[in-house]
Parts: sequence; structure tokens; C-alpha cells
Amino acid sequence: MTTISMYKISAPIFVQFLTSLSAVLDKAAAFCEAKKIEPSVLLNTRLAPDMFPLGRQVRAATDHAINACGRLAGAELPTFSNSEATIPELKERIAKTIDFLKSLKPAQIDGTEGKEIKITFPSGATREFTGQSLLLNNSLPNFYFHCATAYDILRQCGVELGKRDLMGTPVSM
Amino acid sequence: MTTISMYKISAPIFVQFLTSLSAVLDKAAAFCEAKKIEPSVLLNTRLAPDMFPLGRQVRAATDHAINACGRLAGAELPTFSNSEATIPELKERIAKTIDFLKSLKPAQIDGTEGKEIKITFPSGATREFTGQSLLLNNSLPNFYFHCATAYDILRQCGVELGKRDLMGTPVSM
Repeated sequence: MTTISMYKISAPIFVQFLTSLSAVLDKAAAFCEAKKIEPSVLLNTRLAPDMFPLGRQVRAATDHAINACGRLAGAELPTFSNSEATIPELKERIAKTIDFLKSLKPAQIDGTEGKEIKITFPSGATREFTGQSLLLNNSLPNFYFHCATAYDILRQCGVELGKRDLMGTPVSM
Repeated sequence: MTTISMYKISAPIFVQFLTSLSAVLDKAAAFCEAKKIEPSVLLNTRLAPDMFPLGRQVRAATDHAINACGRLAGAELPTFSNSEATIPELKERIAKTIDFLKSLKPAQIDGTEGKEIKITFPSGATREFTGQSLLLNNSLPNFYFHCATAYDILRQCGVELGKRDLMGTPVSM
């Protein structure tokens, strides 16, 4: 009988949906190619003027996955240029995130439910979490929000995607 | 030291985000009132012609929460008319879903990681899950997708919402 654990509800889940997000970007690239559209048009599309555009939605998804698993594991977080402006650059960022998540061992994340984690935001404000509250109430819902919104932007742009593209395939890690 | 469990990653999480979804609908109703817009306009808005409109996104969110927790617990699932066409009716559906989720005891859901669950879809197709795969790879991501897309539709319609409205407040259950 397998028992649920902090690892099982984090790293493999992030990898599953980052993998599908990367494949969704492939479909976006193919769409641009077929329709002679500059990919930057899609990457700069927003659902509302004060929401992040597609490119930033993708970056935010990787950030939440890295911040959650990296802080739970107490690992050094990978850094990015944050200037990714093309589909290949965003896919590279996703690939680097997946490599990082796969490098973490279950033993580094399991048992971190009560771990005290203090996060300092760019504004200077700080917020204290337990491992459980960071993952369940913050990182996972934010991660899913940015993945879903990236998908929603591309659906609105006319890219042919279905629920299966969004959901991807469960991974064994 | 609290330990993560199937209950902790399901019922209270669904309740948190259904509660915020209900409050988001309140803001949508206030927006319609202020702008003299028929709420049905918002409820029928889609991000793409072959995506669900807002009303159906809300219904789908409740369905995934009920199906996951109800099947894990082996409880009788509440039923709905599926004809909810107004904001109050959708809020009533959400409230009924929250009542159902709150009626489930941790002991009914904890330990169901390996439970075999066979789901028959309206098409007649069947799919077999373990409790863990149903919750982690299917119900939670679908639930979050429909909540995020409901929020995205309202943001696109101009309703003033921020990330805090989407995320809501963690609940103790």
C-alpha cells in the first residue's frame, strides 16, 4: 500500500504539468508556423490588460514549482535570466526546471509538512509558511493557475488544444 | 508534527477554493448591478467557442470536488439539476457542494491512496483509477483548471479581481 507523501504531491505533479506545458508550447509554435504569425504575438497576449501575458504565465509556473520543491528540500534554487522572449527559451526554462525537480530525492521532501519556511517577496514583505501550507495553499494552486491561464490564452488565440494537452501523462519518479 | 494525508489534500482544499469561487461570483453580481449588465451575459461568456462558458466552468469545478471526495469516501454523491442559469443558483450549488465536503470525516478519506475506483463516463467509456491517481492526476488539476478559467473569464469581462480573490483563505476542517 503506497502512502501519500509531500514528495508525491509535489515534484512528480509539477513535472507532469510542466511537461504538458512544454508540449503545449510546441503546438503554439506549430500554429505560428502554419499561420505565419510571429510567436511574440502569442507570448505577449493577455486575457486582460492587467494580467500577465503568456510568456510571464509560463515563467510564473516554473517559479512556483521551483520555489515549493526547492524550499521544502532546502536545496539551492536554480536561477534564470527572466528575459526569456521566445518559445525555445521558455521551453529551455521549463526543461531546466524539470531537471531540477528530478534531481530532488523523495527523502529531501518527505516529512517537511511542518518545516518553517519564511519567504521574502520582492517588495520586501515576508510571509511565514509551514511546508504543508506553502505547498497546498500557495504553490500548487498558483502553479495550476498559471498553467491553466497559459492554456486559456492559447485557446483564445485559436491554437487547437484539448484537455488532454493540458493534463499530460502522470510520471513515475 | 502533522502528517500529510489524502483528506488534507482534498476536502479542505476544495472547500477553500469553492468558497473563494462563490465570493468571486458575488463580485461578478455586483459588477453586473453597477454596470447594468444581465448576469447571463457573463455566465454565457467563453474564452473560445469550443470551451465551456462561465456557468459550466463553475458546475465542472463542483463536479470534480464531489466526484473525488465522494468516491474516495464511498459516500452517496449529491445530485444537481445541472440547469443552474443564474448566479444565485450557481452559488447554491457551490454551497451544497461545500456542505457535502464538510460532512465527510477524515477517517473516510484517509488511507484511500490505493483504493480501486472505476469511473463510467457519460459516453459509456470506463477508466480505472487508484484513489491517489484519481485525486492527484485527475480531480485536483481539473478542479483548479475550471476555477482558474472561471476567474479568467471574469477578468476578461472586466470584473475587478485580484489573486487574493482567487486564492481565498485556508480553512480548518
